[in-house]
Amino acid sequence: MKDRTLLMIPGPVEVEPAVLAAHAAPPTSHLEPRFIEAFSRALVGLRGLFGAADGQPFVLAGTGTLAMDSAAANLVEPGDAVMVVNTGYFGDRFGAIFERYGAQVGHVRAAVGDRPEAAGLRAALSTATGPVKLVAITHVDTSTGVLTDVPGLARVAREHGALVVVDGVCSIGGEALHMNDDGVDLALTASQKAVGLPPGLALLMAGPRAMEAFRARRTPAGSFYSDWANWLPIMEAYEAHRPAYFGTPAVNLVWALDASLALILRERMTVRWARHQRLAKACRAGLAALGLGQVPVRAEIAANTMSAPRLPAGVSAQDLLPRVADAGATLAGGLHASARSEYFRIGHMGACGLGEVLATLGALETGLAACGYAFERGAGVKAAAAAGG
Amino acid sequence: MKDRTLLMIPGPVEVEPAVLAAHAAPPTSHLEPRFIEAFSRALVGLRGLFGAADGQPFVLAGTGTLAMDSAAANLVEPGDAVMVVNTGYFGDRFGAIFERYGAQVGHVRAAVGDRPEAAGLRAALSTATGPVKLVAITHVDTSTGVLTDVPGLARVAREHGALVVVDGVCSIGGEALHMNDDGVDLALTASQKAVGLPPGLALLMAGPRAMEAFRARRTPAGSFYSDWANWLPIMEAYEAHRPAYFGTPAVNLVWALDASLALILRERMTVRWARHQRLAKACRAGLAALGLGQVPVRAEIAANTMSAPRLPAGVSAQDLLPRVADAGATLAGGLHASARSEYFRIGHMGACGLGEVLATLGALETGLAACGYAFERGAGVKAAAAAGG
Repeated sequence: MKDRTLLMIPGPVEVEPAVLAAHAAPPTSHLEPRFIEAFSRALVGLRGLFGAADGQPFVLAGTGTLAMDSAAANLVEPGDAVMVVNTGYFGDRFGAIFERYGAQVGHVRAAVGDRPEAAGLRAALSTATGPVKLVAITHVDTSTGVLTDVPGLARVAREHGALVVVDGVCSIGGEALHMNDDGVDLALTASQKAVGLPPGLALLMAGPRAMEAFRARRTPAGSFYSDWANWLPIMEAYEAHRPAYFGTPAVNLVWALDASLALILRERMTVRWARHQRLAKACRAGLAALGLGQVPVRAEIAANTMSAPRLPAGVSAQDLLPRVADAGATLAGGLHASARSEYFRIGHMGACGLGEVLATLGALETGLAACGYAFERGAGVKAAAAAGG
Repeated sequence: MKDRTLLMIPGPVEVEPAVLAAHAAPPTSHLEPRFIEAFSRALVGLRGLFGAADGQPFVLAGTGTLAMDSAAANLVEPGDAVMVVNTGYFGDRFGAIFERYGAQVGHVRAAVGDRPEAAGLRAALSTATGPVKLVAITHVDTSTGVLTDVPGLARVAREHGALVVVDGVCSIGGEALHMNDDGVDLALTASQKAVGLPPGLALLMAGPRAMEAFRARRTPAGSFYSDWANWLPIMEAYEAHRPAYFGTPAVNLVWALDASLALILRERMTVRWARHQRLAKACRAGLAALGLGQVPVRAEIAANTMSAPRLPAGVSAQDLLPRVADAGATLAGGLHASARSEYFRIGHMGACGLGEVLATLGALETGLAACGYAFERGAGVKAAAAAGG
């Protein structure tokens, strides 16, 4: 294996040099004036990232699962009903988290690689035995690469009076999502995905209806560490250029977040989303030219931040992926329990451009050839270059 | 303010170049072979750091408060009795966390700057209305710089059948603590203290009695994100050189942890503790020569990882600390609510040596002079050099 490969998994991802430099500097005090300014800028910048002019941002040290934990622990109380629009591993997880905090959880499911549509959610909400407080949607399930229709699902959820919570771990910063326009009450992500940082930060944006639900709680949040009652005064203080202490912020990651948000907002969200769409189109054109199918059952429900290609007959991920890594690109195996051995995963988000997609397809071709798979060498790279130009 | 000051607060701290380099590299996959080896080495190395040959390590993305949350959420169930040996802000916090997870919490307290001794704990445990499941001890309370007698307190706790849990956030890697020798069932810390990393990792070591208590739970852990049922298979897999997924590890911090533990264990724990004792002695000799008192009411109960000097009459932290920073050393203000304006804090842990202590005292002298405080210039640095040589 090369000492340096392209990191093309659905997180962690390649990081922009300016972000890496901000992250690499010696730690600063969390109370020094320059850090306070950087944190304040990052909090303001997150509103642009999430499309939530009226949102309350939370930046917590932890993983994407902490972001999900924080959403669930603060928004539900024992006995509340939650409906999960489930497209895979992370829908199951979100359901388990809501249950831990006392919710009664229902799931609207589809076959692996497919997705529930708005009509399916409407049917589930209409037949629920009581009011559903919250609908949780995985925007892109990292286990399947399936993209859900957030605006359509959100409309139905709100028609039924439910809060709309979006797990955007594998989407935000890469897939089109604008909380205000799309009717989303809370969205969350993690630092190592399309936001383009190393892993270690959970990012949440709570809109007015989510904050209202939090303020109306009759019981404290189920988790102490996730409790917004602890973190809200800190976020408000830093945004207002005042230091405050609850837990020590992951200062290096906050510096990196500030640097990355500057790049993201300079690119502009709509341009960034279009770039991810081009990258996905290029990657899938290349994979199709190599004869590989996809886990998502229709092109229009496949994510733009990642691809989940099916393995050719006779080629296992254990054989293929080390060879692709030797050829220069680190990819990921399958994750969804019922199909884990049948597919692999490619991330194309954040700092990724067409060059990385072409390099990845080239490495994939080398790996496939080494595994004895018969195909026209160069066809994947050529198709991707043509589709992504 | 200089662009580069010494970071002499009780966390984050100065970081060794090798650790900073490991942390600064572009993120790797959490599933690549070299990362798996680094994580495995780090997990094994943590047993040496904590002095727990039979311990189960946990490395979680989060702050020190997450480590406390994880200890409490996994070790207590609703109705369990907990006794906190309280020396300040973090004793109060630990109590609040145990309460969140349903425990009945008592506190053994002392005046600010003093500490409860083993006899006080024995009295509290003897007069408790029922069995106390767990005694929680803050080894060094970062708010007061008071060091507790862990072995003496642990002996009493175990005589009463209680689990011994040590919040070592401001101690582990700097203060003498050996879980096996000292009778500690769980100890925890955070990455940005005496372990010498940037902030963002919570580190726990659970001994056999703690794991037994966890396995005997009748209810799931109160927090999903903190739940060892989620993390234990991951820690076991990585230690056994197998990849596994629950949440994406903070890969850069794990690489840094591996690098820092190599340095720490090469120095050897007893040598490292003695170095911290010398640094503390030097710092306090310097502060005394400048006429500054301490929050800890007796020298023998003052921490070795940090100092909490009292401000001279007529000098406020708001006036002093920016001037000290201008002169090259970033210090921290007070944190304990009842004395916040009366003192400030200096961290001397991790990668810190006598040079940093002398530089800090020099900057402090410059700051004190600029505030109009009358003292013999050079006296603090001279006394520290003499005491720390």
